[in-house]
Amino acid sequence: MLTFDTHLQLALDLVGVFTFALSGGLVAVKKRLDLFGVLVLAGAAALGGGVMRDVLIGALPPVGISDWRLLTSALVAGLVTFVYHPGVERISRFVRVLDAAGLAVFAIGGSLKALGAGMDPLTSVIVGGITAVGGGIVRDVLAGQVPEVLRREMYALPALLGSVLIVTAHHFDVVTPLVIWGCVALVFGMRMMAVVLDVHAPKPLRTGDRP
Amino acid sequence: MLTFDTHLQLALDLVGVFTFALSGGLVAVKKRLDLFGVLVLAGAAALGGGVMRDVLIGALPPVGISDWRLLTSALVAGLVTFVYHPGVERISRFVRVLDAAGLAVFAIGGSLKALGAGMDPLTSVIVGGITAVGGGIVRDVLAGQVPEVLRREMYALPALLGSVLIVTAHHFDVVTPLVIWGCVALVFGMRMMAVVLDVHAPKPLRTGDRP
Amino acid sequence: MLTFDTHLQLALDLVGVFTFALSGGLVAVKKRLDLFGVLVLAGAAALGGGVMRDVLIGALPPVGISDWRLLTSALVAGLVTFVYHPGVERISRFVRVLDAAGLAVFAIGGSLKALGAGMDPLTSVIVGGITAVGGGIVRDVLAGQVPEVLRREMYALPALLGSVLIVTAHHFDVVTPLVIWGCVALVFGMRMMAVVLDVHAPKPLRTGDRP
Repeated sequence: MLTFDTHLQLALDLVGVFTFALSGGLVAVKKRLDLFGVLVLAGAAALGGGVMRDVLIGALPPVGISDWRLLTSALVAGLVTFVYHPGVERISRFVRVLDAAGLAVFAIGGSLKALGAGMDPLTSVIVGGITAVGGGIVRDVLAGQVPEVLRREMYALPALLGSVLIVTAHHFDVVTPLVIWGCVALVFGMRMMAVVLDVHAPKPLRTGDRP
Repeated sequence: MLTFDTHLQLALDLVGVFTFALSGGLVAVKKRLDLFGVLVLAGAAALGGGVMRDVLIGALPPVGISDWRLLTSALVAGLVTFVYHPGVERISRFVRVLDAAGLAVFAIGGSLKALGAGMDPLTSVIVGGITAVGGGIVRDVLAGQVPEVLRREMYALPALLGSVLIVTAHHFDVVTPLVIWGCVALVFGMRMMAVVLDVHAPKPLRTGDRP
Repeated sequence: MLTFDTHLQLALDLVGVFTFALSGGLVAVKKRLDLFGVLVLAGAAALGGGVMRDVLIGALPPVGISDWRLLTSALVAGLVTFVYHPGVERISRFVRVLDAAGLAVFAIGGSLKALGAGMDPLTSVIVGGITAVGGGIVRDVLAGQVPEVLRREMYALPALLGSVLIVTAHHFDVVTPLVIWGCVALVFGMRMMAVVLDVHAPKPLRTGDRP
C-alpha cells in the first residue's frame, strides 16, 4: 500500500518551489532584469517543472497555477531575491546549490505524484526527471542561455537515479518519510559532489582527437 | 450567473490572434525570415498563449489548433505582414502597440474562459496572465530573443491586474460586454502608458550601487 | 473504416524517434556537449514532437514518456551518435537528411494518431504538423539556435502537405500501408529536394528593395 501522503507531497513541492524560485530570481538579477522580470523568472523556474509534470499526467489544473501556497512561495522567494540578493560575484555558486536542492526535491516529489496518479514505474521515473529539470530549462531558455541540464556534467543523472530509487521503494512498499528524504539527500549529494569535484561526463571525440 | 457568452469569447480570441499574429509576423520580418518563417512565427505568436490556456484547463483539443476561424485569422495576418509590412525602421514601435492589444484581449479572454471551465478565481487570474504573455514568449524564444515579458517594464502587471478585475467582476456577477471591453481598454491603456512614458520598474541594486 | 493499425503507428513512431534522436545527438556533438547532454538532447528532439501531439489530443501519459520501446530507441540513437558520430565537418548535411526523415514520418504518424483519437480533419492536419516540427523546435531552442522550421525554406510546408494528403486519404477511407509510406516518401522527397536544390521561399522586401 502507498504510504505516501499529501502533506509530504506539499512539503516537497514547497521546498522545490522556493529553492527554484530563488535560483530563477538570481539568474534574473544576473541578467539585470527589473522587478517584474525577477518575479516572472522566479515563478517560471519554480513552477515550470511541476506544471509540466501535471500536464503530462493529466492532473489539471496544475497545482503550480492553482495552489496559493506554491504561488505565494514563489512570489516571496522572488521578492527575497530582488531585495537581498548577494553581490553579483557570489551569485553563480549559490544558484547551483539552490538548483541542486530543487532538483533533488522535485525528482522525488515528481515521481511520487506520478505513482500516486497511477502511472507505471517507467513513466513515473521519466516524470520525476522532467519535474526536476523542467523548471531549470524554462528558466534558462527564457533567460537566453543553454539549459544547465545540457551544459553541466552529472545533472540529469542524479535526478533519474533518485527517481529510480523512489519508484523501486514504492514497488517494494517501503516509501516512508525517511526513505523519501534519504532519496532527496542522495540526489542533492550526488549533484553537489559533481559541482564541487567538477566531475565531467565524457565528451565526444573530435575528429582530430582520434589516434 | 455567468453573463459571458461564446460569441464574445470568440471575438476576444479573434482580436488577440490577429494582433499577436501581426506582431509575430513583424518580428519574423525583422529577422529576415522567409514566407514560411513569417507564417510559422505569426501562428506561434497568435496561438501559443491560447493553446497553453486550453492545455492548462484541459479544454482539448485547444481551439488554437482546431477552430478554422482562429487559424485563418493567424494565416491572413501573417500574409498581410509579409506583403504590406512597413519599412523595417518603423516596425519596432508598431509591434509594441499590437503586442499591447493582444496582451489586453488575451488576459481578459483567458480569465473568462478559465472561469467558464470551472476554474477557481486564483487559477483563472494566472491562466489569464499566461494566455496574455504565452504567445509573446513563444514568439520571442523561437526568434532567439529574451521575451518581452522579462525585458520590459510593466508588461505582466497590466495583464494580471486586468485578470484580477474581470475575475472580481465575475465574482460579483457583473460581467457585461461593457465591463469586459472596459477591462481590455484598461490593460491596453496601462501597457501603452508604460511604453509611451518609458516607465521602468525598479532594478536590483548592484553591489557597487549600495551606499 | 479505419484501416490504420497500432503496429504501423508504432513503426512510424520508432522510425521518427530514432532519426530525430540521431539529429538531436549530432547537434549536441556539434555543440561539444558531454555524454548526458547528448542523451538529453537526443531524447528531447526524438520525443518532443510526439509528447506535444499527445498532450494536445489528450492521450495521456504521452507514449514518448511511457513506452519503453520509444525511450530505448532514443537512448540507443543517442549512444550511437555519441560513439560513432562522423567528423564534425560532415555532420551538418547528415543532420538535415535525418531531420527530413523524422519530419516525414512524424507528420504522417501524428495526423493518423490524431484521426484515431477522434480529432476532426483540420485539427489532425495541424497536429501532424506540430508532431513533425515539434521535436526539432525543442532541439534547436535547447541548443540555443533559431529553429530549423523558421530558418529553412520549405520545412513546414512538406509536413503540412503530407498531413493534408493522409487526412484526405482517411476521409476517403483509403489509408493502406502503401498510401501511408507513399505519403512519408513524398514529404521526405519534397524536403530533400528543397535541401538539395537549395530552394528558397520568397523573403519580405526590404524598404530599400522597393522600386
